[in-house]
Amino acid sequence: MKKIAILGAGFVGRSWSILFARAGHPVSLFDTVADTADGALAIIDGSLNSLHSQGLVDDPAAVRGRITIAGSLADAVDGAVHVQECVNEKLEVKQAAFRDIDAAAGPDAAIASSSSTMPASAYTEDLPGRHRCLLAHPLNPPHLVPLVELCPAPWTDAGVVDRTRDLMASIGQVPITMTKEVPGFIVNRLQVALLNEAFALLEDDCISAEDLDKAITDGLGLRWSVVGPFETIDLNATGGLAHYVDIFADEYHDMIKDRGAPRRWSETIVDRANAAMRARWPLSGIQDRQAARDRKLTRLAALRSDTPKA
Amino acid sequence: MKKIAILGAGFVGRSWSILFARAGHPVSLFDTVADTADGALAIIDGSLNSLHSQGLVDDPAAVRGRITIAGSLADAVDGAVHVQECVNEKLEVKQAAFRDIDAAAGPDAAIASSSSTMPASAYTEDLPGRHRCLLAHPLNPPHLVPLVELCPAPWTDAGVVDRTRDLMASIGQVPITMTKEVPGFIVNRLQVALLNEAFALLEDDCISAEDLDKAITDGLGLRWSVVGPFETIDLNATGGLAHYVDIFADEYHDMIKDRGAPRRWSETIVDRANAAMRARWPLSGIQDRQAARDRKLTRLAALRSDTPKA
Repeated sequence: MKKIAILGAGFVGRSWSILFARAGHPVSLFDTVADTADGALAIIDGSLNSLHSQGLVDDPAAVRGRITIAGSLADAVDGAVHVQECVNEKLEVKQAAFRDIDAAAGPDAAIASSSSTMPASAYTEDLPGRHRCLLAHPLNPPHLVPLVELCPAPWTDAGVVDRTRDLMASIGQVPITMTKEVPGFIVNRLQVALLNEAFALLEDDCISAEDLDKAITDGLGLRWSVVGPFETIDLNATGGLAHYVDIFADEYHDMIKDRGAPRRWSETIVDRANAAMRARWPLSGIQDRQAARDRKLTRLAALRSDTPKA
Repeated sequence: MKKIAILGAGFVGRSWSILFARAGHPVSLFDTVADTADGALAIIDGSLNSLHSQGLVDDPAAVRGRITIAGSLADAVDGAVHVQECVNEKLEVKQAAFRDIDAAAGPDAAIASSSSTMPASAYTEDLPGRHRCLLAHPLNPPHLVPLVELCPAPWTDAGVVDRTRDLMASIGQVPITMTKEVPGFIVNRLQVALLNEAFALLEDDCISAEDLDKAITDGLGLRWSVVGPFETIDLNATGGLAHYVDIFADEYHDMIKDRGAPRRWSETIVDRANAAMRARWPLSGIQDRQAARDRKLTRLAALRSDTPKA
């Protein structure tokens, strides 16, 4: 088991620490804000106990014992084979972090950013070690939603991408590999495509926001959690995907073509969607609702870890 | 418990029969093809045993005992409070079925179509009882994916919609109510919006079909099975949906705007997606894969039936 360095001890950094340590890796966690680093272990303890109670962590104390708080960035990355950057989502902060990590990390360490919006090319171009830098974007919350989007910069070494994919798979995450940088990567592009239609249906007064959410949680999203969008249509015609497209493609195009090009979400419709949320749930309860979401995701993770891969 | 009539004993009709009978309703199932009707009960027995083994049906024999095969359409609908039409997805077949059902059913019966593509207005306009006709579209497979889209024709009585919604909720389905007919209803519009972006990402050579499916099953779709698209963004910013939109709307629009208006899926890209499916799974194994999907959905249904509603 090789040493992993995590830079940034906020929510995402703590989740990565748990994921790597649960798989047996020694983890060195560093944050430039000493208070954040000091508080991180107590929060990690709470998460580990919750995961333990659901059977997702066997020995919380052992996992916890593999995570140490580093006194400096240099200490954190010393001897690490993989550095996971989890600092603030600001370009200049990412640039400074990558400059410092690249200068301090050993020559064989891969350096991955957790950024949800900024590609690796935006903060690695001028670095001597830019060939070992890439994006490894987790979903929220990373210890319950296993997907990790890997996206190389134009100058990232293919071997570094492969090695990172293997590492992510070995700790139980589900890595996917992009071939090139596109804005939003994969997940957010798919999310926005669906949100655009969702806001448009709300704007056209076709359905309430509450019922639209149910269309996904109790319908499409439920099925998509088991079979992806291509596999879904591959299974819904006797001749597979090509047959399904033969039957439905014209109708599907006719159905949606009048939407035209993507539009900005109007203030009116955002207000309406937000009002629908606040009518059901006051903002003051948001942390309880996040906890409820995570309890459900935890149960799903336990079920899935127990389900044979198809 | 009131009598329910199901017209059409194919896959969808059998699923509806199980759903209504499981909830305690006597179900009368009719098919114009005698062989289909005769074979239906044996297939229903198999499904009930599978559901029983997962804890989704307590007493398969009792459920089975509530389902009878009717000798005629008139016998099936006699005394029924709700008629669920599940005949072939062809306009003239739907029109004939609704004409016959409307003529035979009692004045207080609601008549709902299971059509996935044709709105109720297309086959009910000229009927004396058109006010009691509507669409109630289930997803596939209906006894494992609870969503039902309800869509009234312009002349459907609001009370009939409400009553159908109550009935669907009472048998454990999750009904959503549209206010008017739009092509594709809700679910397929959302599905197509996402598929359009998925095919475009494949066409742009950004990612493999296999990894794109994982982006949903192990990422977005997994989370969406717990919180819908609006609720997801409501929970991902401390100030809720409005706050999330403040932060991300410009970036999201910039990300996707170059896609322009929806395009037809090109032959090239459909071939590529289909080839990716066939490279992983020969067509001959499609039924085994459908069974594997349904086993996973069954486990999810068992988990969800056991999970407190948030």
